[in-house]
Formats: sequence, C-alpha cells, structure tokens
Amino acid sequence: MDFMTRAAEIIGEAQVLTGSDMARYTTDPTGQFHSTPLCVLRPGSTQEVAALMALADEAGQVVVPVSGNSGVSGGTHNEGAAMLSVERLNRVRAIDTVARTAEVEAGVILDALREAADAEGLVFPVVFGARGSAMVGGILSTNAGGSNVLRYGNTRAQCLGLEVVLADGRVMDLMTALHKDNSGYDLRDLMIGAEGTLGIITAAVMKLAPKPAHAVTAMIAPVSLPAALTVLNRLQAATGGAVEAFEYMPRSFVEMHLARIEGAREPFDDPHDVNVLMELAGDAALGDVAEQVLGEAMEDGLVADALIAQNETQREAMWGRREAAAEVMLPAGPAFTGDISLPVGGLADFFDRMAGRLEEVMPGATDTCVAHLGDGNVHYGAYLEGATEEQKTAGIAALDALVAEMGGSFSAEHGIGSYKLGSMARHKNPVALDVMRAIKTALDPKGLLNPGKVIPA
Amino acid sequence: MDFMTRAAEIIGEAQVLTGSDMARYTTDPTGQFHSTPLCVLRPGSTQEVAALMALADEAGQVVVPVSGNSGVSGGTHNEGAAMLSVERLNRVRAIDTVARTAEVEAGVILDALREAADAEGLVFPVVFGARGSAMVGGILSTNAGGSNVLRYGNTRAQCLGLEVVLADGRVMDLMTALHKDNSGYDLRDLMIGAEGTLGIITAAVMKLAPKPAHAVTAMIAPVSLPAALTVLNRLQAATGGAVEAFEYMPRSFVEMHLARIEGAREPFDDPHDVNVLMELAGDAALGDVAEQVLGEAMEDGLVADALIAQNETQREAMWGRREAAAEVMLPAGPAFTGDISLPVGGLADFFDRMAGRLEEVMPGATDTCVAHLGDGNVHYGAYLEGATEEQKTAGIAALDALVAEMGGSFSAEHGIGSYKLGSMARHKNPVALDVMRAIKTALDPKGLLNPGKVIPA
Ligand SMILES: Cc1cc2nc3c(=O)[nH]c(=O)nc-3n(C[C@H](O)[C@H](O)[C@H](O)COP(=O)(O)OP(=O)(O)OC[C@H]3O[C@@H](n4cnc5c(N)ncnc54)[C@H](O)[C@@H]3O)c2cc1C
Ligand SMILES: Cc1cc2nc3c(=O)[nH]c(=O)nc-3n(C[C@H](O)[C@H](O)[C@H](O)COP(=O)(O)OP(=O)(O)OC[C@H]3O[C@@H](n4cnc5c(N)ncnc54)[C@H](O)[C@@H]3O)c2cc1C
Repeated sequence: MDFMTRAAEIIGEAQVLTGSDMARYTTDPTGQFHSTPLCVLRPGSTQEVAALMALADEAGQVVVPVSGNSGVSGGTHNEGAAMLSVERLNRVRAIDTVARTAEVEAGVILDALREAADAEGLVFPVVFGARGSAMVGGILSTNAGGSNVLRYGNTRAQCLGLEVVLADGRVMDLMTALHKDNSGYDLRDLMIGAEGTLGIITAAVMKLAPKPAHAVTAMIAPVSLPAALTVLNRLQAATGGAVEAFEYMPRSFVEMHLARIEGAREPFDDPHDVNVLMELAGDAALGDVAEQVLGEAMEDGLVADALIAQNETQREAMWGRREAAAEVMLPAGPAFTGDISLPVGGLADFFDRMAGRLEEVMPGATDTCVAHLGDGNVHYGAYLEGATEEQKTAGIAALDALVAEMGGSFSAEHGIGSYKLGSMARHKNPVALDVMRAIKTALDPKGLLNPGKVIPA
Repeated sequence: MDFMTRAAEIIGEAQVLTGSDMARYTTDPTGQFHSTPLCVLRPGSTQEVAALMALADEAGQVVVPVSGNSGVSGGTHNEGAAMLSVERLNRVRAIDTVARTAEVEAGVILDALREAADAEGLVFPVVFGARGSAMVGGILSTNAGGSNVLRYGNTRAQCLGLEVVLADGRVMDLMTALHKDNSGYDLRDLMIGAEGTLGIITAAVMKLAPKPAHAVTAMIAPVSLPAALTVLNRLQAATGGAVEAFEYMPRSFVEMHLARIEGAREPFDDPHDVNVLMELAGDAALGDVAEQVLGEAMEDGLVADALIAQNETQREAMWGRREAAAEVMLPAGPAFTGDISLPVGGLADFFDRMAGRLEEVMPGATDTCVAHLGDGNVHYGAYLEGATEEQKTAGIAALDALVAEMGGSFSAEHGIGSYKLGSMARHKNPVALDVMRAIKTALDPKGLLNPGKVIPA
C-alpha cells in the first residue's frame, strides 16, 4: 500500500487532500513560494499525528507541518512532501482564571485564543496582522513577535508547557502549567522557534495576562526617530511601563498605504516623516498621563502632531493602517524584504546608511518599512521595477552586512524558513550552525521533518 | 606527557591544583557530596578553556565545570575528573546603562554583578543566600531562582547572550544583546540549566533592570497559607505587581533558626505558624500603599501581626533569617530534602498531605521548609535521628509521588545534579529523557562533560 492509502486508514479518506483541494496550502502570503505537495493530511488528534509520523518514519516520507500557513519566510514551502495540517486540533481545552493559563491545541487560531481569554477577563497578548489565520502551533514554531512584545515578550515568553510529536511518532509530554521547573534540558524552548524541523507541536499551555481596565491608542508624529524614542521613554517612565505597542511607519509607508488600500486616509492633516501608532494599557488615570506626556512633548518640540483615538472606530482605523502592512508591502512586489533587529538607538543611523547601500546595489530603488520601534525590529522592503536576481541577492547581502556591522540580527521574528538560509550561512556563528545540525540529526536522523529549512546545507 | 602536564603547559603550573589545594572544591554546601578529583584547572581566558577542552577531548579526560561550588544537588560531585573552575574569568566587561545590559565573564560572583549594576543605578535581580559565592556560570548552568523570581523570573529570563566552549573545545559565540533574534534553534536556553553537561559557559550578556526608588520590607504573620496568598494578591493589585519577594517560613523553621543561629531572634512578640518576609519595590507612594493593604488585611482577620522594617538594620535582620536557610536546614542533617514546585493554590493541602505520608515512611520524623510562596516553590527538609537509607529513599519517593499527583515538579530551581537522578528516572516523561540523551550524545559523543549528571542512566 502506498503512503496516502495508509494515511487514509489512520485519519479517514476525507482528511487526505490532493489536487485542487490543496490550493490554500500551496502558496504563501508573500506570493514568492509555491509548493507542489504530495498531499495534505489533516489529523484530528495527537494520537493521529503520532500514528502518521510513525507511518512516515517507516515509509521514509518527508512531512512538512503547517498551521495557519501565514508565515512569511517560506517555512512550509515543499516539493512532494506530505503536509501535515494541525487545523483540526482546534480546541481551547481549558482556561484557568486563577493560574491565568490556557491549555490549547495547536490548531487554535490566534484570534480565537485572544477571544477566549477576553471572555474570561484575561488577555493573550500576542498580536499581529495575521491574527485571524495564524495558529498556536505556527506562532510557537516561529516564536512570533508582533506589536506587544515590548510589554509581554514574544510567543516563547507566553508558553509554559508543550506537547510535541517527534519525527518517529513518539509523543513528548512537556505539558506543565508550572512557572518553575528545572528538570533537565530546556526542550520546550528548543521546540519553540524550530519551525517544524524537530517535532510537531500538538498542544500547549499558554500564559494569560490580567486585562488592563483602560487602553489609550494614539497616532503621533515625532519630529525624528530619536525624538520618538525620547517620547517612548517618557511614556514608560510616567506609566510604569504601560506601553503595549509603539509602531513606526515612515512617510513612504503611509503613501503606499494610501495608494494601495481602498478607503485609506492620511493619519494627520499634514504629512509627516515619522508616524507612530502607540497604545498604552492600564488604569483609568492612563488617559490623563498620556495626554500630559504628549502635551509636554509637543511643547518641547519632540512631537509635531498627535491624535488620541476617541472611540473604537478611530482606534480600529489606526490599527487598520498598521495591520495592513503585509497587504501594502508584499503585493507591491518587493525586490527583497528584511525582518531585522538592531540596538534601539541605532535605528536612525541604520536608515541613513541603508539608503546609501541600496543605491549602490540597486540604483533608483525605493524602500519602506514598518517597525516595532521599541524592539528595534524593522520589517524592511526594497522596491525596483525589473530588479535582477543578482541585484536582489546583493540587496539582501548588503542589508545583512549592515545589520551585522551594527550589532543586529538578520532575523528578528519571522524566522528562517527557506528565505533566510543565505543569511544564516553568511552571518550565524558556524559553531552554532554545527550544533544545530547535530541536534537535527539526533532528533530526526532520517531528515523527514521539514528538511532543508532553518539550517543551511 | 600526561594530561596534567599538558594542561599546565596551557594555563601554567600554578593553575593546576592537586591534593589539599583542592579542598574547597571537594565538598558541597549540603555536606553530602565528597569528591576526589584528579585536579582542579583554573584557566584565565575563554581561549584557555577552549584549549583545555580540546586537550581533554584528545586525551579522553572527563571534565566537571565548577563556578562558585554552591550548588546543592551534587552537580560538581566527581571521582577522578579534572574540575575546570571558571573563577579567574571574573571581569564585568561592560555595563550599558542605556540598553541596560551587562557583559560578564562566567566567574563573576553574583554579589559582584549585583554591586556593579547598583553602582550604575541598575539592578541585577537574581538573589539568594549563596550570592556571595555563586557565580554567573553557575547560576546560568542551574537556571537559579531565588527570592525575586516572582517579579523578574529566574536566571534564564535575565540572559540575552552566551559564550560556550563545547566538549571538543570549539567556541560557540551567541553573545548578543538583542531582545529579538529568531535565527535558528534556541541554543542559549538549551545551555542554560544544562548543569555543565553540554558545554562550559565562559561569558554572558545579562539584562539589568531599572532600580526602583523605594523598597518596603516587612515581616507579616498571615493566619493561614490561603490568607497569605490573598494578601499577596491584594498587594500585587494595589501596587501594579511591585512585590519582589514573598518568602514563607513556618514556625518549625523559626524554631530551628532560634536554636541553631547565634543571635537569632523571634520575628514577632508572639509565635505564629505562618511567617512571611515580604519586599516590595517601586516609587515613594509604596510605603503608604503597603501600610494600607496590611492594615486592611489585619482588620479583615487575614494577618495576625505585621512589622515593617524602619531602617536598613531591621531590613537586614529580616533577610538574615531567610538567607540563613541553608545554614539552618542543612547542617541539621536532613534525612532528605526537596526543592519542589506546586500550583500555588495547592500549598496548604500539600503540607497537610505530606505530613501524613512522612509519618508513614518515617514514623516520628519532623519536617520544615522555607518557600518562595508566590512561585509555589518549597525547599523542604525532613528530619529523623538515625533514619535508614531505605527510609530516606522512601521519603524522597513519597515526596515526589505526592508532588506528581498534585501537578507539581520534583525540581523547581536547584537542578538535578546527582541528587535528583532517581526523581528524574521516576517522574520525567520517558520520551523527554530519550531526547535529552540524544542531545547529550550529539554534543558530547565521548561523554566527557560532567557525565552521569542530569540524565539518569
Ligand atoms: C499580515 C501578516 C502580518 C504578520 N505580522 C507579523 C508580526 O508582526 N510578527 C511576527 O512575528 N510575524 C508576523 N507574521 C508572520 C508570522 O510569523 C506568522 O504569521 C505566524 O507566526 C505563523 O503562524 P502560522 O500558524 O500561520 O504558521 P505556518 O505559516 O503554518 O507555519 C510557520 C512555520 O512553522 C511550522 N509549523 C507550523 N505549525 C507547526 C506545528 N504545529 N508544529 C511544528 N511546526 C509547525 C511550519 O512548518 C513553518 O515552518 C505576519 C504574517 C502576515 C501574513
Ligand atoms: C545558602 C544557599 C542558598 C541557596 N538558595 C538558592 C535559591 O534560593 N534558589 C536557587 O535557585 N538556588 C539556591 N541555591 C543553590 C544555587 O543553585 C547555587 O548556589 C547556584 O545556582 C550555583 O552557582 P555556583 O556558581 O555555585 O555553581 P556550582 O555549584 O559551581 O555549579 C552548579 C552546576 O553548574 C555546573 N557549572 C558550574 N559552572 C559552570 C559553567 N561555567 N559552565 C557550565 N556548567 C557549569 C556545575 O558542573 C554544576 O553542575 C542556594 C545555595 C546555597 C548554598
């Protein structure tokens, strides 16, 4: 019997998709990666995932895990693999409001977890544009960041326990809700961010946070990036660290947004170079404190304009612009993109120097970005009609090199997948790469789980 | 040439200790583990550590890393190994007050790092009784906890970057100060808590925190453990999470402290069953808020007595009692000890049930503890004059079993070392143990680094 027939015996024929039924698994949000999988398997339980992996191990079948397929680094790209989707493992099993934890399956959609927490007066703080499709398994496997990292940390920081099916089908049970557990190697954090190359995450225990009573959302136009950071620091000091999001959009992004998104509007009456979406959350006094800090910042000449959202509609419009970043930047067909992090103070300098480097390798190119400013994390895009493959490659190399010179990382939050393999080869410590290879071989000796991703050959 | 002669060529003869010069490396604070090492090597740089490990790899010489030798799980216990002490790698290389990071070598003593941070108006928040001897390499390798985990997390949560010498002498450079860096497997967290079995930590980039302007330290006598937790929650809510320490000492501990420590005094005029040392840190308003919460708690019958430290001398007396825990509990010769964590709400129930189990396996035994109450982390000790080895083993097994039944962990913060191997074998997920073995073999194929620790055979 062939692999698919045997897989169908485990999960039922209806859960083995082929041909056009696989359509939504075969392309990615960037439009760069097109796959021709053998099939898509949709198991309904951890036991079925385990049985499928035992079968794959026996048959020598390559398997690529997929959750929401919203990743932007080509992590699910494959030729001829069996894709294993966890989407049917979609139960929020339990929410413990006293311990503030949620036990969830890997196929729970990020927004569904956020809503389930909200219904209990709690917050699951991971949030970004793809929150309607990304799933727990995917955000853990990419260690997703997003807009609230400043306050809450990335997805890794939200995870207490994991359940993982290994390459040979064994189930590793690390499902604990304890905050303190020093019992051997930190296998949980090894699996988080491994992008499906070391095991398949089937369930997790996630932390929830108390829901702040009030939120203040505003668009501000600091006169420069250093001015923006000064305002951020003043806000943090005045509120005891209540800033949840501090998202930078340059004028170039605002203009692309106006040009590409129907109904898009200018954030302010006048155009500004530096546009920041900020959100604070805390107690009732927060609104006054924020107004006072922003008022003083305007008097001090740090901020040229500021608009505080007066209702949910205004708030949503502000977030809508920021969360449309992927729709704005990706369909415009960037010659290359980057998801880099830098020491926060170096950002203004970085943009200046990158403009020069870009002009060298791709004369006439333009660039734009959105940035999680407080994290020093820039989602960068460079554009040039008719850029050659050589130019694209040179552009990425120039970006990587500048970031390395400035003490940054070529991969802040989107992961490596297929797209960043070259950057890994050029800039990751070679001994660290060797250690990753040794671990990959130890846990997946046949190379069946998402081979060719994360670690360059 | 033999191993020691060749080692002396690398680090100089004076840095190869043998015989009685090794005295302070051959016993541990619990008095349970006595080693007869081949020698103690004291390299002066990462390069020397690397050269020593390359030599050990060639010679097949077992190496046991040691920092402050204050660990309490027998992690440095060895027979005939070369101990490699990082104590001469003791420079605080740089403190960045803007990014709030410290680049330090592995041999920096915890108190030295705390003082260096303090001198710059910052805090390195890891703190526990052995802070005068434990070193950065050791607190990372055991992922030490301590009294401030409630607010700041354990040592893992303080670490951004690492430098590690592998078993074969290669240097893995993961020294970053970035908060966001998703570039491949999380090797940093794999090395943290690995207790010297996967590599030797030689340097690290640690996070520092802003120094709160004011601290409030108090001894309180809640009427029960549930009452203590209610007070903790009220304090957290009223101060926005300003509680740094919430340390429980039962009456039995206070009495042992009085009996064993010269100059020890009663915490209150009257004896109480539940004694809690609490510390909050924040702004100037904190004192008033704390007084109000405690006042209300007394009115509500939750707290029987409370004393707020009025000066540094009173504060030090309060901390002195808590930090003497090891001197109080260990020289008294416990039949067995435990470092367990439990869901916080289950603590009162745990103590009741454990009393029953103890009486079954060791009739007539007494017990005591200190606990990081907010973390659900209990340092437990059981005492019985003339307890047999069978009774001791049965006692540990009974403790472990109860903790497992209650959803806790047999190892909260002290690590596994030699002492907890039995607990690991009995209660850690067998698949997780296999994965640990696979990783150990992949990174240290000759089994030269601290063999026989952490992972049961
Ligand atoms: C509009 C938009 C905005 C975004 N904004 C951000 C942002 O601000 N910050 C940020 O960090 N990211 C952002 N992303 C990318 C983000 O990383 C992904 O959307 C998300 O983390 C991936 O989740 P997913 O469920 O879609 O995973 P997928 O795309 O399905 O998979 C991602 C990777 O994980 C692996 N994987 C998936 N499921 C499992 C599993 N169960 N077990 C093991 N491996 C698995 C896959 O093989 C793949 O390598 C954005 C994406 C979009 C489209
Ligand atoms: C009085 C007292 C109070 C304590 N209170 C607490 C507490 O509240 N919370 C808590 O968590 N712990 C506590 N401890 C134990 C604590 O875990 C250790 O004191 C400390 O974390 C170990 O640091 P060290 O430098 O002494 O390491 P060591 O004891 O030298 O080593 C500990 C382990 O790490 C390994 N190791 C050491 N250095 C390195 C290195 N550079 N690279 C790789 N591996 C290395 C060793 O081989 C060993 O396995 C206490 C201990 C004492 C004596």
